[in-house]
Amino acid sequence: MTEPLPLGSTIGILGGGQLGRMLSVAAARLGYRCHIYEPGAAPPAGQVAERVTTAPYENEAALRAFAEGCDVVTFEFENVPTAALDLIEAQVPIRPGREALRISQDRLTEKTFLQELGLTVAPFADIPDRAALDAALDNIGAPSILKTRRFGYDGKGQARLQSAEDAHPALADMNGAPAILEGFVDFSHEVSVIAARGTTGEVACFDPGENVHREGILRTTTVPARLSPAQRTDAVLIAAKILNALDYVGVLGVELFVTAQGLVVNEIAPRVHNSGHWTQNGCTVDQFEQHIRAITGWPLGDGARHADVTMENLIGDDMDRVPELAKEKDCAIHLYGKAETKPGRKMGHVNRITS
Amino acid sequence: MTEPLPLGSTIGILGGGQLGRMLSVAAARLGYRCHIYEPGAAPPAGQVAERVTTAPYENEAALRAFAEGCDVVTFEFENVPTAALDLIEAQVPIRPGREALRISQDRLTEKTFLQELGLTVAPFADIPDRAALDAALDNIGAPSILKTRRFGYDGKGQARLQSAEDAHPALADMNGAPAILEGFVDFSHEVSVIAARGTTGEVACFDPGENVHREGILRTTTVPARLSPAQRTDAVLIAAKILNALDYVGVLGVELFVTAQGLVVNEIAPRVHNSGHWTQNGCTVDQFEQHIRAITGWPLGDGARHADVTMENLIGDDMDRVPELAKEKDCAIHLYGKAETKPGRKMGHVNRITS
Repeated sequence: MTEPLPLGSTIGILGGGQLGRMLSVAAARLGYRCHIYEPGAAPPAGQVAERVTTAPYENEAALRAFAEGCDVVTFEFENVPTAALDLIEAQVPIRPGREALRISQDRLTEKTFLQELGLTVAPFADIPDRAALDAALDNIGAPSILKTRRFGYDGKGQARLQSAEDAHPALADMNGAPAILEGFVDFSHEVSVIAARGTTGEVACFDPGENVHREGILRTTTVPARLSPAQRTDAVLIAAKILNALDYVGVLGVELFVTAQGLVVNEIAPRVHNSGHWTQNGCTVDQFEQHIRAITGWPLGDGARHADVTMENLIGDDMDRVPELAKEKDCAIHLYGKAETKPGRKMGHVNRITS
Repeated sequence: MTEPLPLGSTIGILGGGQLGRMLSVAAARLGYRCHIYEPGAAPPAGQVAERVTTAPYENEAALRAFAEGCDVVTFEFENVPTAALDLIEAQVPIRPGREALRISQDRLTEKTFLQELGLTVAPFADIPDRAALDAALDNIGAPSILKTRRFGYDGKGQARLQSAEDAHPALADMNGAPAILEGFVDFSHEVSVIAARGTTGEVACFDPGENVHREGILRTTTVPARLSPAQRTDAVLIAAKILNALDYVGVLGVELFVTAQGLVVNEIAPRVHNSGHWTQNGCTVDQFEQHIRAITGWPLGDGARHADVTMENLIGDDMDRVPELAKEKDCAIHLYGKAETKPGRKMGHVNRITS
């Protein structure tokens, strides 16, 4: 693509959660219309999009009609079924491309890809069966983490093995799902880089943020992260290397462990990322607009940060704190319009401008 | 109202232009749903709202159905027909209230109201007929401006009288519409204050912006405005006085002329205002969110400015500059999703962060 997608074109978004919602608002700001495709009823993104299709990913007629009305299609999560993507791609370009999705959908493929790029990852092993698990434990040792290869998010599909005795019951709990074993990384903290690559190959990164998780769910991201200048450069170089290797178009999240031996890549997400929400109140062009700019062929924003920000997720009952948060100075509130509050459910976030 | 409107409630917005569009996005960010009512087809606000009703303001059934589904109703422009408002108000509260609308819909009523508040306005006279115009010209003199009392915006419905000879043809051009004559004010520049008042009576003002018009249309707003500390305080006091006198709930725009003799009130707009668009990139809580906070009973944002900003409207063919603007650093682009570019039509704006 040499010319940007004409204004007024329609961007299709697979998935109607909060990421799709914030992408839709950013797309509107640049003069595009959005069409959300989401199996669940009353998706949060539907409240701020011109069109919504509510249908399962197996409904070929709905997928075809959706694709027909879109000029480009993107997604808010990486586990869209392959058959649905095949069908859409026959009609309209998908950005980022299928290769990034294929790799990030499977932890084994992803770890192998990163290792082959020359990046440092945690020790890992494919676990097709019990025998493989026993052998891997001999190599990697405990504590370590058994993870399903696919469909894991927010700490789901993971079991921590404190010792070898935990191994077989944990594998049995996975009900035969393909798994990998990952060694523990001795890290001081986790950071992430939200990086973007445009249709012409240009790359722009936001400042790395420092992440705090609890119970497998991201709680806060703080910028600037605690990083030496060399680590900061390394983080950006790692992200750029991944983007180029994938011939990527769009925004990508890269989670990194900070260790005494350097940065270890934890995982990548081929989409806008929760740890990039701070950019909404810290940058002129935020991660959502950056993604829309990338996939529609606009020049990228430069990623410059004009404020220090701490993003805090509002999870489940954190919503009870909204009345107090509303009184706080320099606290930007972003709610997702979800009808039902559930434990562990991301309901919104706040960005506190700290300087 | 002592408790804020529950999250998930529906805000009705009369008018589906760019102001309704940006209000809808702000409402979503606070967890509300929006229903747009707009006579014109394919309104810009409809692209980012959950529901749209396309019907004239004379369609009572459509108005009733709209009101029934809303928990509070607001508007993006002040010329909604009175009968439509009566019908809606019988079912659901309208914020800001009817008194502010009644006053700002009519230049004569508005000028009289401001004068009775003790504020300085341009000399003015009611012009029911030719004889009144002749008498008024004797008092006020020329140059002066003949304006229709109602439905004027962006310089429409106005005629400049350079001398008494222009008077009768100008009046004839108004086809019998009620008019007023306004004297010229010798001002150095124009500023505006975007002010808000909440349901509990609290008031918050954004920093005054300095406005530049061309051909009757706002071109740029720059903050900070050139004002002495005393003028700045005066500007805010004037706005607060107007808000209190109207028992106002919501955001109000107040345009002021800066003169050697002090501030002269030009006009008020009982809604979010083009000269407040800079707040989107200069404040944590912008004018759109501030309005939604006010009408739903949330605490107001404090109006603090974290950046200097120049807002520039993109009018008509200015849209051709978007590709270049997209490359500019610290330049936030806000497009309105209007299908057709016309001369004089507001198509979008940019906010340049200048420090």
